[in-house]
Amino acid sequence: MFAPYAGKDRDAYTSRVAERLGPMSLETTQLRHGANDLEGADVLFVGGGNTFRLLKALYERELLEPIRRKVRSGTLLYIGSSAGTNIAAPTIKTTNDMPIVQPPSFDALGLVRFQINPHYFDPDPNSTHKGETREQRIQEFHEENETPVIGLREGSALLVEDEAITLLGEKTARLFRRGADAIELSAGAIVIPSREDGAESPSQ
Amino acid sequence: MFAPYAGKDRDAYTSRVAERLGPMSLETTQLRHGANDLEGADVLFVGGGNTFRLLKALYERELLEPIRRKVRSGTLLYIGSSAGTNIAAPTIKTTNDMPIVQPPSFDALGLVRFQINPHYFDPDPNSTHKGETREQRIQEFHEENETPVIGLREGSALLVEDEAITLLGEKTARLFRRGADAIELSAGAIVIPSREDGAESPSQ
Repeated sequence: MFAPYAGKDRDAYTSRVAERLGPMSLETTQLRHGANDLEGADVLFVGGGNTFRLLKALYERELLEPIRRKVRSGTLLYIGSSAGTNIAAPTIKTTNDMPIVQPPSFDALGLVRFQINPHYFDPDPNSTHKGETREQRIQEFHEENETPVIGLREGSALLVEDEAITLLGEKTARLFRRGADAIELSAGAIVIPSREDGAESPSQ
Repeated sequence: MFAPYAGKDRDAYTSRVAERLGPMSLETTQLRHGANDLEGADVLFVGGGNTFRLLKALYERELLEPIRRKVRSGTLLYIGSSAGTNIAAPTIKTTNDMPIVQPPSFDALGLVRFQINPHYFDPDPNSTHKGETREQRIQEFHEENETPVIGLREGSALLVEDEAITLLGEKTARLFRRGADAIELSAGAIVIPSREDGAESPSQ
């Protein structure tokens, strides 16, 4: 089951995904009509595009609660890419996307207890750009919010099974917590330390 | 009069601005209490930081309508920098900022009839980054919205007097319209052509 709502041309995106997955004997259908559509699905793949447009569409179709319920009960595997990763977090407040449309709320699926910042990249020391760096933007998030944020660099993924979180890929990920220095998480099993644990990561 | 709501430490930011403007015999006070506070002011300077936090604060303080009214009637000069520029547009839908807090609406002051994208920068052809370029983000905006967008590069400003718009600085600005190719606007008096005018800019 594929949810293409972050893009503009949904049918074209669904066709592309179906073409890629077909040779793996995976059948792809576009999620259209809400909870009933989800019933027979084993896997929900939510693709990339604009996070605000994606979340607004999920609200309009009343899909958030059915997805949340099926994933939490273990009957649906959730795979998100880019915008699809953002909405797996409690809110979309750490998206990089432009707010081109206004969803009724920034609250998202909350499948994990931390925020994700996809496409994370490190500040360029040679930049003359006066806009905020990605790290500064996440620090602004922590001026207003408590939830930890994992900055996922290109080529990385998080595998979440119940309480176990594994960082996949060759790169480290950057963990930001309110009131603590950012730390690098190594690939493999990761633990998100609470603030009281200080800056030590058990995975390092 | 200074509105520091895009930053976290408002008093520190106000002090910095007052220090800079003091030698020019300009008195700076922080905008705090709404419409009455604005009465004696000649100039309102709205600084940079996070656009979502700024707009949320202006809604909470019921400041949007008084500012709009005074600027439109010609009794208040508005100066915006970065986030302060974003909220001069009809909406904040072309901000680059992270949505760290949720304002009740994305509608902003609407002092001009176009959107502004501050800190605009051109795509880096050597980038391995898989996130959207700034130009792609603005194209996404035009998949959902009609309003023209001016991408303002670092060191540029727009001077708006009634209907006359002048691009200040040494760089060109990039004009995006729905359904038309983006064009470069030269410094000096600029005209935003309607879609029917095609891709020709009278200022070029």
